[in-house]
Amino acid sequence: MEKLSRNSRVVAITKILMENSNRIIGLNNFSELLNAAKSTISEDIVIIREVLEKLQMGRIETIAGAAGGIKYIPGIGQEDSKKFANELCELLRDETRIVPGNFIYMTDLMYNPKIISKAGVILSSMFKASEVDYIVTVETKGIPLAYEVARNLGVQLVIIRRDNKVTEGSTVTINYVSGTSGRIQQMSLSKKSMKPASKCVFIDDFLRAGGTAKGIKNLLKEFDSELVGIGVLVDNVGVNKKKTSEYLSIVELQHIEETDTLEVNPSKLMS
Amino acid sequence: MEKLSRNSRVVAITKILMENSNRIIGLNNFSELLNAAKSTISEDIVIIREVLEKLQMGRIETIAGAAGGIKYIPGIGQEDSKKFANELCELLRDETRIVPGNFIYMTDLMYNPKIISKAGVILSSMFKASEVDYIVTVETKGIPLAYEVARNLGVQLVIIRRDNKVTEGSTVTINYVSGTSGRIQQMSLSKKSMKPASKCVFIDDFLRAGGTAKGIKNLLKEFDSELVGIGVLVDNVGVNKKKTSEYLSIVELQHIEETDTLEVNPSKLMS
Repeated sequence: MEKLSRNSRVVAITKILMENSNRIIGLNNFSELLNAAKSTISEDIVIIREVLEKLQMGRIETIAGAAGGIKYIPGIGQEDSKKFANELCELLRDETRIVPGNFIYMTDLMYNPKIISKAGVILSSMFKASEVDYIVTVETKGIPLAYEVARNLGVQLVIIRRDNKVTEGSTVTINYVSGTSGRIQQMSLSKKSMKPASKCVFIDDFLRAGGTAKGIKNLLKEFDSELVGIGVLVDNVGVNKKKTSEYLSIVELQHIEETDTLEVNPSKLMS
Repeated sequence: MEKLSRNSRVVAITKILMENSNRIIGLNNFSELLNAAKSTISEDIVIIREVLEKLQMGRIETIAGAAGGIKYIPGIGQEDSKKFANELCELLRDETRIVPGNFIYMTDLMYNPKIISKAGVILSSMFKASEVDYIVTVETKGIPLAYEVARNLGVQLVIIRRDNKVTEGSTVTINYVSGTSGRIQQMSLSKKSMKPASKCVFIDDFLRAGGTAKGIKNLLKEFDSELVGIGVLVDNVGVNKKKTSEYLSIVELQHIEETDTLEVNPSKLMS
């Protein structure tokens, strides 16, 4: 291929980095694709690193050694996070979202790529990729968000099913008590889906009493694996979380049943 | 903010475009963020457009008029598509994937962001964003892929449930006949999830007899909406698709039960 100008090279490198979040890319890959010396590519990367940091758009890390290279770590500035959390609160502060049984309809938000891609960057930046092997979620509503976090951290997604599926092969199934309803429910995970001794982060749309999180902790034990973090879009602060431990959220919601109002605010992490 | 160099501006613009696939962004947004004249930004965009096209990394369209601006349309070159399809075939050509009941275990692939993000670009480029209102899928395994297609096309994702959920409010439920098992199953969709007269594309992991696709077509009719396309990762070519019409796939798979072998090849679109 003909030689490209620096302007053109930085565009191509930026694009490739964005598409490979938290994955190490050797400089020779860029060097071959763009027909430029490694030293030239290194200079290009300095430019990209500087502008991403200046505009708080994430950062680039250099990994030394034979398997070394660079990796892009998605990020978002404090101001942008705050703005996003406030916009989300505005969308949630809508009483028509209340559905019978003290539930909040938020499917439209959870399936909106514009919202979920940004929430995914915020939640992923709360965890260190090097310390996470899998992002775990339970079907269905949290899947797009969990997928975004997994993509940003460059790790595999694992989806726990509510029932046994023929396409999953052998599965491990546990019973757990839903903190909200008090009823016994099931969770099922394919034996092939996880290596032993893995560190997992649970991502979901909504945290109520934390019964699901507790169930996941127990299910992961069956895989000799560990739950190292929990991140949710919305934390229902009205419910006492005695069933779960530490977790992170973007917004906090409280539904006051008596007056049918919704109180929604950014979480402390966002302010 | 201080003025940035062209090198730095093109990095920032590229990043913003990638994060807003198929969404029109007015030049004044870049102009304000980067403290540069619109004419300067226009020149930056010419550079980005040229290198993306040269490296077959998608394209930039200019939209004229008051609500105009530019938008990025993700794309992948023919060679890269082919290579990806061949790698996918290699991964699928593994007899340990066969699970009892003539099913193929492919959960690991469907939940792998590296694979799904590329497959999402390939499938999204087969549809015109301007002619799609929603990407529709049915829980669970196809959700990450459907989400990627929706993100690339800049449209909302809609997930059809197998059961009624309390958090969904009022739903429309239909019965359909699974083409594979011959059994009657249910699909359920929240009434709030779709505007009438919408055009929808159905994305899924695996197409067998097409019973699910036919069910979705009928369910969409209840929303006065239309199924305008079907895209899947794997087409089970061993099964006669009498239940469905046109569809697109990335790879074709045939499981020969007698010898327990898997025949997997790129679809015609990929060659």
